[in-house]
Amino acid sequence: MAIFFHWDDATRDLWDTAFSEAGTTADIRTVDNLGDVNDIEYAVAWAAPHGYLGRFPNLKYIFSIGAGVTHITEDPDAPLDVPIVRLQDDMLVLDMSCHIIHWVLHFHRSYYLYKQYEGEKKWLRHRYPDNGDRRVAIMGLGQTGQDACRRLRDLGFDVTGWARSPKEIEGVRCLHGEAQFDALLAEADILVNLLPLTPQTENLLDANAFTKMPDGAFIINCSRGASIVDADLLNALESEKIKAAALDVFRTEPLPHDDPYWDHPNVFVTPHAAAPSNERSAAQFIADNIRTAMSGGTPTPIVDLQRGY
Amino acid sequence: MAIFFHWDDATRDLWDTAFSEAGTTADIRTVDNLGDVNDIEYAVAWAAPHGYLGRFPNLKYIFSIGAGVTHITEDPDAPLDVPIVRLQDDMLVLDMSCHIIHWVLHFHRSYYLYKQYEGEKKWLRHRYPDNGDRRVAIMGLGQTGQDACRRLRDLGFDVTGWARSPKEIEGVRCLHGEAQFDALLAEADILVNLLPLTPQTENLLDANAFTKMPDGAFIINCSRGASIVDADLLNALESEKIKAAALDVFRTEPLPHDDPYWDHPNVFVTPHAAAPSNERSAAQFIADNIRTAMSGGTPTPIVDLQRGY
Repeated sequence: MAIFFHWDDATRDLWDTAFSEAGTTADIRTVDNLGDVNDIEYAVAWAAPHGYLGRFPNLKYIFSIGAGVTHITEDPDAPLDVPIVRLQDDMLVLDMSCHIIHWVLHFHRSYYLYKQYEGEKKWLRHRYPDNGDRRVAIMGLGQTGQDACRRLRDLGFDVTGWARSPKEIEGVRCLHGEAQFDALLAEADILVNLLPLTPQTENLLDANAFTKMPDGAFIINCSRGASIVDADLLNALESEKIKAAALDVFRTEPLPHDDPYWDHPNVFVTPHAAAPSNERSAAQFIADNIRTAMSGGTPTPIVDLQRGY
Repeated sequence: MAIFFHWDDATRDLWDTAFSEAGTTADIRTVDNLGDVNDIEYAVAWAAPHGYLGRFPNLKYIFSIGAGVTHITEDPDAPLDVPIVRLQDDMLVLDMSCHIIHWVLHFHRSYYLYKQYEGEKKWLRHRYPDNGDRRVAIMGLGQTGQDACRRLRDLGFDVTGWARSPKEIEGVRCLHGEAQFDALLAEADILVNLLPLTPQTENLLDANAFTKMPDGAFIINCSRGASIVDADLLNALESEKIKAAALDVFRTEPLPHDDPYWDHPNVFVTPHAAAPSNERSAAQFIADNIRTAMSGGTPTPIVDLQRGY
């Protein structure tokens, strides 16, 4: 039995340790060292080069090193009959919530302006609404979205969540489905995107959507770049309909040098760093799941490719 | 009966409303409109010009529009036999915690570096320790310090608090007194200063203190500027013993144009904006306290001038 592994080589030690602690004595194969592809029963990967995953005839499960799985499904040769297990990781959830809380506070309290004033040595204090009068809208109510909702609620913000299907979160107004999307936008002083990329969510945030938001709203995108129509966002920033945006994900990553986001004073670019998978806990989660599979159980959570997550 | 009022004139309406809702039909006097100083029984003020508070022979209480009171006690003519009531305000506590959380996350997750990289169009992700491996040290465990401790603990940080006298906060290691100050510094990856200004806390954070901190530590100062020896902090930043500092308070405010903090790339200046008193809730709190005093009760909390808070 062998495991195909594709991720940052610098983390290999840590994965080897996790695999061996979980009792999987398997050898690890990489693109440079595939060996006999018939041996490979499990793939543990983030953004493996296209064409590889389809080469393992005995593949039982594909483990995504991350909550997203389009890096697998976009490979035209990916064996989509093999179950894909996505990462579900408490550390990742906390990291994502911290990222969101940081940017909500950064915009709510005008820290981005104070930073600009520093260059001008300008001492100017900005008023801000009470937290309870600042409406934060979270798109996507999976484990991370729910955690972010609760933590922002605990900071006193007026939080609305929106998901594909109905959800209940104490102290959070939960909307769902296409029919309630406009209602969400209308109260999104700060809009946080946590939606997975699916045909329904691609280009969801376009000129039409921005028009329905409050004037001077903020955008925090930390799931997938293709949810936003970039030209429309740049226009909305130009007219100050959207005041500022914190973007962690992009259609092309790394963000190309000539991308206008880099130079925009009110766009804050982070390098897909909202919740970089925590190596230790990710390795533990996947190694435990492989052990489960080896002893005849079923790893979780298995992605429903119809839903896209 | 009259009230001497000194604060932002733009908020006068709001105070008038609060005073009248609390049933105090008193007339409001300002430096431009003192009238008969014998009428004045209460002073409600932030940073009134020196010399005024001592001119009211029938003054019963001085209400500080803020948690700090040195703006009163530094006035050489202040009538220190008159009880001073400081602001105790849940909104102010929440605002301060939000400020602290913002800067802890900003440093912990390297957002300050990503901002610098943006200018260079550099896509470089920084690793960071798990929240549980980042030690946050909070100096000052009053209402705000305790709230900040609990909220940072809930975000998974390793939190140590330090106060003059012993305190207990669940899930937070509480140290106290001069004897344990070095122990606090030794585990202050991120040091937050919430101490009131007293002879004991003035110049507390000097070269000697910085030496005892972990290499590459961060400072968040949001109580009083004079707690820090500025030249020593600039030296520590130069040697990168201290990696970065978020400073909201300064010895002279507004921060003078020629102050080196303005230009330092790793110093983040905010204009005493960590917890600007929330007008509505502050007005409510003080108006209620005046009503209490008028009906023969005792307003709280009255400042102990020996302790300084």
